[in-house]
Amino acid sequence: MQAVRAKIASRSLNPGAKLPSIRGLATAMRVSKSTVVEAYDRLAAEGVIRSRPGSGFFSAAPSAPLSLAELAPRLDRAIDPFWVSRQSLEAGPGMLKPGCGWLPAEWMPDEDIRRALRHLARTRDNGRLTDYGTPLGLPALRQFLSRRMADQGFHAGPDQIMLTESGTQAIDLVSRLLLQPGDAVLVDDPCYFNFLALLRAHQAKIVGVSYTSEGPDLLAFEAALAEHRPRLYITNSGLHNPTGATVRAATAHKVLKLAEAYGALIVEDDIFADFEVDAAPRLAALDGLDRVVRIGSFSKTLSASFRCGYIAARTDWIDRLVDLRIATGFASTPLSQDLVFNVLGSSTYRKYLDGLRVRLAKARADTVRRLRELGIEPWLEPEAGMLLWCRLPDGLNAADVARRALQDGVVLAPGNVFSLSQSAGDFMRFNVAQCTDERVFQVLQRAMRTTP
Amino acid sequence: MQAVRAKIASRSLNPGAKLPSIRGLATAMRVSKSTVVEAYDRLAAEGVIRSRPGSGFFSAAPSAPLSLAELAPRLDRAIDPFWVSRQSLEAGPGMLKPGCGWLPAEWMPDEDIRRALRHLARTRDNGRLTDYGTPLGLPALRQFLSRRMADQGFHAGPDQIMLTESGTQAIDLVSRLLLQPGDAVLVDDPCYFNFLALLRAHQAKIVGVSYTSEGPDLLAFEAALAEHRPRLYITNSGLHNPTGATVRAATAHKVLKLAEAYGALIVEDDIFADFEVDAAPRLAALDGLDRVVRIGSFSKTLSASFRCGYIAARTDWIDRLVDLRIATGFASTPLSQDLVFNVLGSSTYRKYLDGLRVRLAKARADTVRRLRELGIEPWLEPEAGMLLWCRLPDGLNAADVARRALQDGVVLAPGNVFSLSQSAGDFMRFNVAQCTDERVFQVLQRAMRTTP
Repeated sequence: MQAVRAKIASRSLNPGAKLPSIRGLATAMRVSKSTVVEAYDRLAAEGVIRSRPGSGFFSAAPSAPLSLAELAPRLDRAIDPFWVSRQSLEAGPGMLKPGCGWLPAEWMPDEDIRRALRHLARTRDNGRLTDYGTPLGLPALRQFLSRRMADQGFHAGPDQIMLTESGTQAIDLVSRLLLQPGDAVLVDDPCYFNFLALLRAHQAKIVGVSYTSEGPDLLAFEAALAEHRPRLYITNSGLHNPTGATVRAATAHKVLKLAEAYGALIVEDDIFADFEVDAAPRLAALDGLDRVVRIGSFSKTLSASFRCGYIAARTDWIDRLVDLRIATGFASTPLSQDLVFNVLGSSTYRKYLDGLRVRLAKARADTVRRLRELGIEPWLEPEAGMLLWCRLPDGLNAADVARRALQDGVVLAPGNVFSLSQSAGDFMRFNVAQCTDERVFQVLQRAMRTTP
Repeated sequence: MQAVRAKIASRSLNPGAKLPSIRGLATAMRVSKSTVVEAYDRLAAEGVIRSRPGSGFFSAAPSAPLSLAELAPRLDRAIDPFWVSRQSLEAGPGMLKPGCGWLPAEWMPDEDIRRALRHLARTRDNGRLTDYGTPLGLPALRQFLSRRMADQGFHAGPDQIMLTESGTQAIDLVSRLLLQPGDAVLVDDPCYFNFLALLRAHQAKIVGVSYTSEGPDLLAFEAALAEHRPRLYITNSGLHNPTGATVRAATAHKVLKLAEAYGALIVEDDIFADFEVDAAPRLAALDGLDRVVRIGSFSKTLSASFRCGYIAARTDWIDRLVDLRIATGFASTPLSQDLVFNVLGSSTYRKYLDGLRVRLAKARADTVRRLRELGIEPWLEPEAGMLLWCRLPDGLNAADVARRALQDGVVLAPGNVFSLSQSAGDFMRFNVAQCTDERVFQVLQRAMRTTP
């Protein structure tokens, strides 16, 4: 197969040209005829070559090459909420990504996943391999989540939980259910940049509330409620993105009371729960899923290659969410749910999480020290997690620094992609798990020096 | 683990009660202490029991049971576009589903999937198991699709192809890109019921065009274009759902000319391509992705447990679709794409498809014969595929028949869920691959007899 591919790639076998006969190639390469038959069959299945009954095999028409846009970083894109997403997702293997929001692959629980894959390959139930999923998703995983939420202090029966493809899809479905174009939505400023992108896709009127180390600024929060009468407030209670802050219990209580007084609903994105050492106060726990919708996923600590998120909400909303999900995606991905459940239930995964928290604590301390040497100061030192929200020295423009660093193959996350008011121009978010390579700091230092 | 679960389920171990000590249980069950430790560890990981350091293990708070709604068919739901979806997706293992739109699990290529799972479990590249996917999706699979489209006679470079979670998600993203609330959209009458559900979610103004055995009725099509100036027309060119019809080349040509004249775009859903024996004329092939967007998936012949769809469209649209996908779902599912690519490239999968076409031809002939014995007449006998669109005798109301059959555990697909004009009240769609059990016809006959 390799030999034929090489000939086609080097143009020594032109599109449409006849391939050597099976007997001829077998003799030339000193392999059996059946080996050549199998190789030709597979190449034909892939569409690289084509069989014409009675006359042999022919090189297929070549497909267009991948564009350079896929192979090189994009240097010309505006620094908008998509900037970090696309740079991080499109980064080639040689690039460093201290700006991205996930762990390096080698930090992830690959052995647990391998075991889950082998386990699934041995099932006698073909339906697990090929059937559509049920609308709510794998019952065992929903039972698991229900118990976990009971531990967090609120009741969400398995019927109140719908599994989704991701945390982002969870928020998207909830937004489809609850928002009309033009509805006002409150977000923290700064907040996870993709909230802004998602809400723009829903044509919402986005209103920012400045975020403190103890949660949203309550005066600003109440003023925004009074002025804009928002339908929703979207936030992370534990290990807030990008700041790493955790809401105080008293603030959470006040946020809920204000939301109730002004008729706003709340989406609590619990995506970083598994990083926590001490559990943060939870809006869902105070409220009990009356006006709070809890969403989350396993992409950060288990896998982002087969993602699985969830929505926990009032039963009447879940019923309507099921119809929306069928209309817009038909079914869920039971294979992912199956793998996630298998990994979550293993004792090695729990041990991995314990080790991960320790490893992150060390990486946080190391990264804070290295950043301080460059004059970069954390806004706060989070209790857990991978994110550090930092201020650059001398009012440096973080977007300029990020553009320069990208030229050296380093993806950074400049502050203003997180800020609706664009007031975080000298901030940068760092992922401590992606800062273990010395080159990150070398490139960062050079980029800071050469930024005017 | 089983013993502890049984005690909890039978309430002989109440919530919060202390479990036997590790030594005590090991002695009682004649197993080693390490076996009990491992079992307790796993149960604790699942949240069934809880460890309190220094004082042992305790039964966790029980979670709420699954509701009856999950265990029993819903008899009270209105016959709307969601009726067939939810009944089919929620059907328990004992139910028969001649109304559903997919193959039975035992018809699917499970061995190819098992091999792909084992193959993936052996990878040395952890990123394949845990990393987020690139925005467009696995390059190798896009190259494969690009070649396949070249075979169908049109050019779509890998950069013009975005992988999605499903065919439905593909249409949803295209609708998000191209539609505003209130925009008119043409659909065939009858058409795939979920097109109606999806377009309603987008608040589109849906306009039906009556469908003939050769494609849309051209006079009605032009009249609808002139009157409603629709933004989009959504259709299946090959093996149309629900009728199994295939558009004629001359009709396809005329449809494109009319769409051009009135400025309408076209979404061609090629979901049933792999069932075809002779390739249908393709709008995308005539048009070359100028005003046609091609979408498709592998859910029907490969797996619906890990789905993978795609969009092929103009490069400028793909670029905007990538941003929309990031905003609303963040990334794709590389693990599914990896498995799909592995299966598609195997020679056994091609042999399976050949066998499947033969098996379906036989099932079509058998089902037509059995239905005719009941006085049920196919509207046309399709050249390939699993769907049969049939008229019930004596003007019987198909929704009434479907409701009665559901009481006997058989999910049918009454005609009006496919019909915007509600003019298919005496039609029914059958899936011949789901009609191999004699009980289907017994229940159907009884339901027809007892329907007034």
